[in-house]
Amino acid sequence: MPKAVFQVGEKIYIFLQLDRQGGFERQMMQEAIWQQIQFDERGLVPAIVQDARSGAVLMLAYVNAESLAQTLASGETWFWSRSRSELWHKGATSGNTQRLISLAVDCDGDTLLLKVEPQGPACHTGERTCFFQHWPIAEAEEWA
Amino acid sequence: MPKAVFQVGEKIYIFLQLDRQGGFERQMMQEAIWQQIQFDERGLVPAIVQDARSGAVLMLAYVNAESLAQTLASGETWFWSRSRSELWHKGATSGNTQRLISLAVDCDGDTLLLKVEPQGPACHTGERTCFFQHWPIAEAEEWA
Repeated sequence: MPKAVFQVGEKIYIFLQLDRQGGFERQMMQEAIWQQIQFDERGLVPAIVQDARSGAVLMLAYVNAESLAQTLASGETWFWSRSRSELWHKGATSGNTQRLISLAVDCDGDTLLLKVEPQGPACHTGERTCFFQHWPIAEAEEWA
Repeated sequence: MPKAVFQVGEKIYIFLQLDRQGGFERQMMQEAIWQQIQFDERGLVPAIVQDARSGAVLMLAYVNAESLAQTLASGETWFWSRSRSELWHKGATSGNTQRLISLAVDCDGDTLLLKVEPQGPACHTGERTCFFQHWPIAEAEEWA
């Protein structure tokens, strides 16, 4: 576990590096985030990664408690690689890191939405987003 | 299975109601979509639902082959409810349907991105999006 994370009983506490919040608000926010999240039987939740500036959905990856703690402590996205069974710091080898701007939990707590500022393409193919295979279905004034 | 879907050997064929494509292009697109998708051991893929106009991420739900076929045939989103183990036509009871505008598959074929035109809130709580529990982490010029 990273230095910034500690556990008391069943609760996990993390140290967040925040720009906006002070000490007490920061602690309250930590509590609120962790209490909302429902990890599945594998200890994972899917995390949607969205470009905070453009709104483009970049990728879907999976997060466990440790990778989430790393994400919150470092301010960059960390995931759990299901294929390699290891923590995965996005951009560690490619340099294409993602700075975390905001975090949201859905209504039943089993999905995260991470808005990020990407430093380069999200996809290993070099595409900006992993969702580059795209088919139009119906006519509409599309936003992106 | 809906009338618009038929299976030959291991391949599933569907009839799409498209605004843009003609017969041949339509058939090619059907093939392309189905060939890209990698359903997991449960026969599911997660589908990110995004508002095509505003770019807001609305929800994450799960799709099996039948619900995807229904989505493509009807032009509205259908999912597989893991808790109720049944097909789920989004908005069937609430009226808050989602018209499918485009479909994308990610680079490794195990996640879908459905851009939709929502007829009302996506969330059962009445919120526009299921991701209404939201925490700012770092300062940035945020898009939404």
